[in-house]
Parts: sequence; structure tokens; C-alpha cells
Amino acid sequence: MLEQLKEEVFQANLELPERGLIKYTWGNVSGIDREQGLFAIKPSGVDYDQMSASDMVICDLAGNVVEGSLNPSSDMPTHAVLYKQFPTIGGIVHTHSTWATIWAQAGLDVPAMGTTHADTFYGKVPCARFLTQEEIDRGYEVESGNLIVSTFAERQLDPLAIPAVLLHGHGPFTWGKDAKSAVMNAVVLDEVCQTNLYARQLNQFAEELPQRVLDKHYLRKHGDNAYYGQK
Amino acid sequence: MLEQLKEEVFQANLELPERGLIKYTWGNVSGIDREQGLFAIKPSGVDYDQMSASDMVICDLAGNVVEGSLNPSSDMPTHAVLYKQFPTIGGIVHTHSTWATIWAQAGLDVPAMGTTHADTFYGKVPCARFLTQEEIDRGYEVESGNLIVSTFAERQLDPLAIPAVLLHGHGPFTWGKDAKSAVMNAVVLDEVCQTNLYARQLNQFAEELPQRVLDKHYLRKHGDNAYYGQK
Amino acid sequence: MLEQLKEEVFQANLELPERGLIKYTWGNVSGIDREQGLFAIKPSGVDYDQMSASDMVICDLAGNVVEGSLNPSSDMPTHAVLYKQFPTIGGIVHTHSTWATIWAQAGLDVPAMGTTHADTFYGKVPCARFLTQEEIDRGYEVESGNLIVSTFAERQLDPLAIPAVLLHGHGPFTWGKDAKSAVMNAVVLDEVCQTNLYARQLNQFAEELPQRVLDKHYLRKHGDNAYYGQK
Amino acid sequence: MLEQLKEEVFQANLELPERGLIKYTWGNVSGIDREQGLFAIKPSGVDYDQMSASDMVICDLAGNVVEGSLNPSSDMPTHAVLYKQFPTIGGIVHTHSTWATIWAQAGLDVPAMGTTHADTFYGKVPCARFLTQEEIDRGYEVESGNLIVSTFAERQLDPLAIPAVLLHGHGPFTWGKDAKSAVMNAVVLDEVCQTNLYARQLNQFAEELPQRVLDKHYLRKHGDNAYYGQK
Repeated sequence: MLEQLKEEVFQANLELPERGLIKYTWGNVSGIDREQGLFAIKPSGVDYDQMSASDMVICDLAGNVVEGSLNPSSDMPTHAVLYKQFPTIGGIVHTHSTWATIWAQAGLDVPAMGTTHADTFYGKVPCARFLTQEEIDRGYEVESGNLIVSTFAERQLDPLAIPAVLLHGHGPFTWGKDAKSAVMNAVVLDEVCQTNLYARQLNQFAEELPQRVLDKHYLRKHGDNAYYGQK
Repeated sequence: MLEQLKEEVFQANLELPERGLIKYTWGNVSGIDREQGLFAIKPSGVDYDQMSASDMVICDLAGNVVEGSLNPSSDMPTHAVLYKQFPTIGGIVHTHSTWATIWAQAGLDVPAMGTTHADTFYGKVPCARFLTQEEIDRGYEVESGNLIVSTFAERQLDPLAIPAVLLHGHGPFTWGKDAKSAVMNAVVLDEVCQTNLYARQLNQFAEELPQRVLDKHYLRKHGDNAYYGQK
Repeated sequence: MLEQLKEEVFQANLELPERGLIKYTWGNVSGIDREQGLFAIKPSGVDYDQMSASDMVICDLAGNVVEGSLNPSSDMPTHAVLYKQFPTIGGIVHTHSTWATIWAQAGLDVPAMGTTHADTFYGKVPCARFLTQEEIDRGYEVESGNLIVSTFAERQLDPLAIPAVLLHGHGPFTWGKDAKSAVMNAVVLDEVCQTNLYARQLNQFAEELPQRVLDKHYLRKHGDNAYYGQK
Repeated sequence: MLEQLKEEVFQANLELPERGLIKYTWGNVSGIDREQGLFAIKPSGVDYDQMSASDMVICDLAGNVVEGSLNPSSDMPTHAVLYKQFPTIGGIVHTHSTWATIWAQAGLDVPAMGTTHADTFYGKVPCARFLTQEEIDRGYEVESGNLIVSTFAERQLDPLAIPAVLLHGHGPFTWGKDAKSAVMNAVVLDEVCQTNLYARQLNQFAEELPQRVLDKHYLRKHGDNAYYGQK
């Protein structure tokens, strides 16, 4: 079932090491079929050179495995929560990519300091707090998903306008309209985490992008008046 | 029309990811035929592995598309202004390359701190200010070009002697006698942005190159008394 | 003798340059057959493209060469001491990998600041002191091994829970259940050395991972209740 | 003439981009035949993919071209001076490699902070001052060579024990027993420039290597009592 989705998710997983976002198997990508309410996700801890599209595991939004002989990524329950609570998203990526992880370890939101950021993220990318002991005991992966959702709710953020989050001390989750675009958002996030860090080192008074430039760049690529690309 | 120019511009665009200046399609190169007053530029948002020389879009100096079925790069109007106002240049590159973008986000001119810089840029590379709301409303891309031109005029800079600029919060534009040399100037700029940043971190008192060394290195490679290469 | 072990050790040595941990021949990997009490190690200073599995040198726990026409790595006696004193380990790696060497040159323990660290190292990775003149005179490589062992004893560390050490001014040794996993631990160590350094630069108040998160991530992958991978 | 030397020098030049030391043609390698008193050097500004061994230019110690239809590297006179004044060396490399150039731009000697350094350089690598206007007028490249020689004389350094120098605001020259080993020394220098810079950032009190460890590592690989490698 869902052969095309499995293939897309498999290809998107292969992109993670190709684009330098992960080493070994330290990441996972999933993609969802909204009609059936099922998503495909990478199996846990399988080497990329021994993986095929048919190894992708199919799960439902309650976090149950529906098809597949391998264990899904241990982060699967986080994906399930995000798909359930963010109904507009179609793909999710988790990595420990170097620069995004640095900001996660620093425990800081990623401010919009350049147009690379503004082309993809309509404002700062939030860093969610550490889980409490109680939350960890209740279920680390499900509660990580719940924390992401509540962080977006409290800050009144649209998950499609800010398709990324950092987990303090851990790393980034990104998402998008499908698995492939979620990977692209992971690449953008890592890039702006690098440029922002150094821009501040170079000039401690380096400012965030003026709102007018943020608006211009984001809306040039997104929404009804976008005029980037071929569409 | 302009088949050879299209091929040169296509090849120069392919160099951007090969030399690590861009990810995905975050950049664009153009080249001009001065006799006809027409330039070829990359189409907007097309994957490199699906692009061919025939996809390059031909435009005139007023920023009109003259030939091509695809939309040109959204930055095309900036290229048009630069070709019109800088009559000595033959190729233009725009990227969000990492180190040049860091200086752009820091909002700082790039000083000449080493001979790598002096071999290509005869003095500091300017960082142009943010556009105003009024300028953005009037036309973001055209006004970006106008800002570059007025920055060079105010500072009395020769665009061939300083073939690069940073746009605050955005990234670099570079140019040269043709598309290929504009790419090389983009590589040099990114490299010196990296070395200058770290040289200052290593030694906060690190100085700019003495004028005599700047003169020697620049004039060893440029002008009537140059003696570098096979000429 | 020990043909399969030689092959595994050879392959693990090839991984060092492939994963960017070393340049030229600046590293060495060994692996042990516990039943026979013999280990295979890379020969000293042989180019990787001229090396084959049969060039691996077989040594015993007293540091004697048992088989092989080439000199073993000059660090071989350090490996022998570690295999003798840490009976649970099956493979050892020594590199001068960039980021771990930076921490070694800084003379600092590597704190657990993120889950990439916690997935592999159950607490901070110690940095052992410089050898004294007396120790160097007695035998630099054997005493380096003894110093690692005494560092773990004094700090009451389990070498399988913290499968790595830094030698002040030198670089890392890592180990694992076999040669391949020792290489993976070297990759993880280098990665966390990079992210920790920058996380502190980005936020000088960046904290170590809370104990509850360290526990969760380490125990998710290690021990009886682990649920990562396909087991 | 000197076909084998030309081939060695050609191969050593190819190593510069392969090992990430240069971009485009920003570097040059030479090697000498001491019996004939002639050296082979890369031609100036020729693309690597259009170069062959037969393009290497043969020069004498007075800096005259003896054979070859192409112009030699513009830095050729510096090589000639070094071969004349440092009779024990057999190969020379000049690059603008990133990390060594950073130290050159900072105008600082490179201290021995780790064993990677001590394995190759028996003490700190000196940074030579800027040339004066008078020296530049007299002949930039010859005087660069003279400055390197006088820097080593003033500091009483043995060019084989410290086979490298930085030129302030410019970049490194390295040398060795032949062209290939001069390239290796350029790789080591760039690596230690990176690790030293970050080690100091991580710990501003990071010390130089104790003399006893410097002695041990250097003499383990060099001189009569060396025991590294297969010899």
C-alpha cells in the first residue's frame, strides 16, 4: 500500500546524508497521505545503503504501526502528534544537523536576520523548552510532539508560516507540504543557524531583518501574490 | 538566438553549486551580449538537474523578456539595471553564499585584509543599506539595482576595480567581464569574507593590508603592467 | 590467522578518511579476538591506497607482534594496555580529528550538552593530563594507555558507558564493542565537540543537559530497556 | 629534460585542490633536481584541467627560465631564492589555504599547541613582516624570498625543522624534502592553524605544548631515533 508515498519518503530520507544534514542514521523523514490518514516513515537504525522504499513503515495518526516488518523510527510518535495537530502539513523531518543543533543546545530562538530566512520562515523559529520528568515518564516522544504543538499555540504561530522548531538540547524538527519540502526547510534552517551565529560574532549589534524586508521576501515566494518560480 | 551566450551562462550557473556557493536554486548568473544589448539569465526556481542551456531567458536592458518560455530569475530587474548603469561589465552573479551572507547580515563593508582580496578587489567591498519602504513599494528588484549603482557613485568606486557589493541583510552581487569571471569573483568574495572574519577573531587588532601591498597585488594582475598568467 | 578480524579492522581504518576524521595516515584502528587474546592493528605510516587487509599486524596483550611483516602503528602499545585493562571493549580508534583535537588542545572535558552526546556517552568525556617527563622516558605509548586507565579509575567511569577519552594536547581515543562501533564513537565525539564549542560561543550560559534527559536518551539506546533500532 | 621531476611536480600541484588547499589556480608547487641545480614549477594562471606534466617550467637558481613555452608562476623568484639559500630542501609549496591565511592576516606566529604540530614542526611557525615600499620596488617576489631567509636567520631556525612560514597579510610557504612532502607540510600547517585558533577560543588559557611532549613527538618521527613508519 501507498507505494508512491513510500518511494517519496525513501528518497527524502536519502537526501539527509546527501545534503550533509546527518551522519549514519541520525535522522528520519516521514510523509503522509491525508486521505487515508496514514504516514510512511523510515525504520529505526537501518543503514541507508541497506534500505529500500519497501522498508518504510506505515503508521496511523494514533501512532500505531499499520504495515511493515521493521520497527519505525523511535521518533515516530512525535511525527504522529504533529500530523494530527497540524493538519496542513504533509511531511516531517528530524535531524541533528550541526548548526541547528548548536542553536538547540544554546536554547535560543533563531531570529530572522537575513533574506535566506525570510524566503522560508515568516519570523523567528522557536526553541521549545526541555521536557519535565513527568512528561518524560508519560512518554518522551509523544510529549515532544505535544510540546511542539503547545509552543506554537502559546506563541500563536502558523506551522506553515514557521515550518520548524528547535527542541532545547536536542535538535530541529521541520515540516512542509510534503517530505521533500520538509527536507528543504531543514536545509534552510541549518544554513540560517550558521549565518546568524557568525553574523552576531562579527557584529554584536547585528539586527534582525526590518519587518518590511521580511514581508517582502516571504510574500514574494508565498501566498496569492507570490511571483517566484514558474507556476 | 545567442546560443553561445546561453551556453556560457548555463555553464556558469552550474558552477554555483559545484563551487559550494549555493544550495538548491538559491542563486542566478547572467551574461550580456553588448552589441545586441541583450542578456541571458537563469530561469526562476528550476532545478539544476532539469535545466538546459536552452532554458536561459533572454532579456533587454529595460528588463523585458525578449525570448524564452520560462520566467526569468526574480532578480532579473536588478541585473538589467546593473548592465545599463555599469557599461563595462559582462556578467553578473547573485548568491546567498555563506560567508558573504554573514557579512551582509552583519551590515559591514569587507575590508582588504589580505592578498587574496587584493588580487581581485582594489579596496573594500561596500555593504549597501536596507531598502526603504518606499523603494520596496516602487519595485524591490529594480530599486536594489539602483541602490547598488548609487552606492558606487557616492563612494566614487569603479565597478570593475571593485566587482562586488553586499546588500544588507541579504547577500552578495558580483560581476566581471563575463559570466565565468563573475562567478570567480563570487568565490573570492566568499573566501575573503571567511578569512577576514576569523583573522579579526584571532587578533582583534588585525589591520587592513598596507596600501603598498594592495597596490602591488592588484596591479600585478590588472592593468597595463600586469604580469600574472599567460596573457 | 584471524582473516575476518583483519578484514573488519582494515575496513574500519578505511572509514577514517571517508568520514573526514583523518588526513593522510594520521590515525589507527584495531580490533580484538577475545578468545585468542590477539588484536589486529593498522601498520605504521602506510598509505591507505597501498594497504590491504593482509597488511594488518597481529599483536598480543603484552604488546608483542605475533604476525605481520610490517611495523604496527606506533600507538600499538596504547591499544594493548587498553585491551588488557578494559576487558569489555572490542575495538579501539585513535585520530587527530579536528574538533576533538581542539578540545584536547584546550585541555577540557567534553560536557554532555545535547542528545547526540547522550545517545552515545553517558556523561562527560574526560580529558587526561599531559604525561610527565618520567612517564615519557618510561615509555610514551604504554604510559598513555596507563594514564587513560587511571583516569577512568579515579573518576569511577565505566569504559563502555563513556567510550572515549581526550589526551591533553594530543587528540582522542575512542573504543566500542568492535572496530566499526569504535569508529562511530569517534564520529560522535568529533560532532559533539563541534556543537558544544559553538553552543557556548552562541550562549555563554548554555547548560549541560538535565540529568533526566541524559538518562532518557542514553537508556533509550543502551541496556535492557533500550528500544532503538531493530534489535 | 627532467621528465620525472616534472611529473612529480605536476602531481603535487594536482594535490592542492584535491586536498582543499586551493581554489582555481591560487597556488603553486615546485621541486628541484639538486645535481643539475634546476627546478620545475607550475606555469602561471593555467587551469588544472588543461595542464599536463610537460607544461611545468624549468628554472635555475638565479630565477631564469631554462625550458618551457609558458610563463612560470609569478612567485617563481621566491622559490629560486629559497632553493638557493635553503640547500637542504627539495620542494616548495605556496597556497592561500584558508586557515593558514587567517593566521597570516592576523600577523601571528603559529604556536605548537598540539602533537599534530609537533609531528611535523619542531616549534612555532614564524610569521614574517610586510615588505617595505623599498623592497616591493626592488622586486616583490625576490624580496619575499629574502625576507623568509632573513626571518629564519634572525630567529636561528633550521628550515628542515620548521618547514613553513607565513607572510603577513598574504599566506603560507611550506617546503620539504620533495614536492610531495612540501604539500603534506602545507596540509599539516592548515590543520594546526584551524585547531589552534579554536582551542584558544574555547579556552583562552590554552597553553603551548610542554617542551617534553614537543620533543617526544618530533623525535619519534624525525632524526636518528625515529621509530614511526616502516623504514
